[in-house]
Amino acid sequence: MILHYTAMALTRHGDLRQDPDWLRAQLASDRSRVLPLRADRNLFHADRQPPEAARIPIDDAALMLANAREVIYLGHEAGRALFAADLDDIDELRAEELVDRAAPGSRFLDLRRIGTLLSPAEGSLAAYARAMTAWHRNNGFCARCGQPTTAMRGGHMRRCDGCGREHFPRIDPAVIMLVELADPPDGIPRCLLGRHPGLPGRIYSTLAGYVDPGETLEQAVAREVREEAGIGVTDIRYVASQPWPFPGSLMLGFRARSRDQEPDFAADELEDARWFTADEIRAFGEFGDDRGANHELPRGDSIARLLIAQWLTEQG
Amino acid sequence: MILHYTAMALTRHGDLRQDPDWLRAQLASDRSRVLPLRADRNLFHADRQPPEAARIPIDDAALMLANAREVIYLGHEAGRALFAADLDDIDELRAEELVDRAAPGSRFLDLRRIGTLLSPAEGSLAAYARAMTAWHRNNGFCARCGQPTTAMRGGHMRRCDGCGREHFPRIDPAVIMLVELADPPDGIPRCLLGRHPGLPGRIYSTLAGYVDPGETLEQAVAREVREEAGIGVTDIRYVASQPWPFPGSLMLGFRARSRDQEPDFAADELEDARWFTADEIRAFGEFGDDRGANHELPRGDSIARLLIAQWLTEQG
Repeated sequence: MILHYTAMALTRHGDLRQDPDWLRAQLASDRSRVLPLRADRNLFHADRQPPEAARIPIDDAALMLANAREVIYLGHEAGRALFAADLDDIDELRAEELVDRAAPGSRFLDLRRIGTLLSPAEGSLAAYARAMTAWHRNNGFCARCGQPTTAMRGGHMRRCDGCGREHFPRIDPAVIMLVELADPPDGIPRCLLGRHPGLPGRIYSTLAGYVDPGETLEQAVAREVREEAGIGVTDIRYVASQPWPFPGSLMLGFRARSRDQEPDFAADELEDARWFTADEIRAFGEFGDDRGANHELPRGDSIARLLIAQWLTEQG
Repeated sequence: MILHYTAMALTRHGDLRQDPDWLRAQLASDRSRVLPLRADRNLFHADRQPPEAARIPIDDAALMLANAREVIYLGHEAGRALFAADLDDIDELRAEELVDRAAPGSRFLDLRRIGTLLSPAEGSLAAYARAMTAWHRNNGFCARCGQPTTAMRGGHMRRCDGCGREHFPRIDPAVIMLVELADPPDGIPRCLLGRHPGLPGRIYSTLAGYVDPGETLEQAVAREVREEAGIGVTDIRYVASQPWPFPGSLMLGFRARSRDQEPDFAADELEDARWFTADEIRAFGEFGDDRGANHELPRGDSIARLLIAQWLTEQG
């Protein structure tokens, strides 16, 4: 199974992007391309199969760049510099007119809606561009002194105009874990899935939560399972990680085991938490299929889905 | 080997701390204790062996609490609520007078200096208190709109007085990796250590760097090794994690292997990067021992040290 948003193919040039002259040369090169975004939506050629992020030749993007709230150097792709341009400050109709002229048939779409349709590389690129523009939009001021900040280094840092403090893109680490029942009494393997009230439909998913200051990833796993489902875990094992740009998380996937057979879920966090067998999960409806299944799988582009798929494969 | 700052023994009560009445009751209870900090230094009983964080009975801490810049509920320890109190707004001499009266012989000390002397639980508690107070000090304003923010939920959230946006403690994930030479030509195992110009003395340590938006931990490991030492890596494997409160990182320790025998270190990031045998590393001087060794080990409380110690043990 593909883990979405983990196949970024760009070379980031973390050193070169600190040089304003080098950045100016990239913005002047007709090889460079612009990826527009607006209101957290990326511009896609949705008519292509699979859909692709629109890459507008820099010569056709002059008006967008001149009116962009922020222009961010993303990296190089096959010798071309890619820039994200946040068109949030441009009126919606005007923005659509601009992009339609430069990339006919393209549309601003929410990655959350079409993520599963994209190729791994396109999904990863769109996720990265979205995470960066969201960070800029939410960090126009210095959290230490309240003065405005200005983007530097191709959009990978913001410096406070007042106190000079440097601010870097924020990434919030979160743990997400598939807990397996150790030694089930009837010998049938089971894993724990919960129903979050914030999720649409009847989705049952792995438990998850943000890492707190002062704890390790493994402590965060144990604490979240204890808080949400009232059970203890052992054999905590890292599986994989996934950038999750809604808006800026880093999902850290784990496996764990529990001998506590009776979950006691926290009513303020979960509506339900239960052990499920592989056969029960295989009967779940697909995410968002709206056919009235009692249980639905989590989103196809989530690491929750990978953790569940891996577990199902192990059960044969 | 102990991995410092990973042995937090508190129960955090993430649900209860959201209730202002419950918090008020804890602040009124004579069982509760206050841990003062000032200018990023924790208050320690440095005369005890090992040193301990000072825990001041709440009845003796009234003046501190009334004048504290921030009071943060840390969690419960053996039935007692522990609060961190940031005395940054109190004049230094006055602050020392206040704490000396309440905890005779105690001193404000930098955890970076005495971290290795503390028990695992005391080091972890001090690290957590320091990370939380530093976060509050640097987040008095809303990064989105520039208005002042106010602490809520026992200090685990700040809300903007203007736009209402909620801000949570920031944790910066960073990868740190020990790279082993795959198939060394003379059959002698080697690992890669580098000399960071920012570090004191002649310390050679594992490579490390912050995770960028849009990448997995494994991609961050490969990118950083490529950027800093010019070599490719395979077999990237997670080892352990460590909160690193200077000021708010989460170190994610990895192992990897490389077939590239000649590191080509980036002069702007490293002064040197080389393959070392186990015997060579065993001849390194201790961190900060100032006895003129050509190479020194990294700090005893760092995960770099754990990764190196593990590798040395494997070499027999």
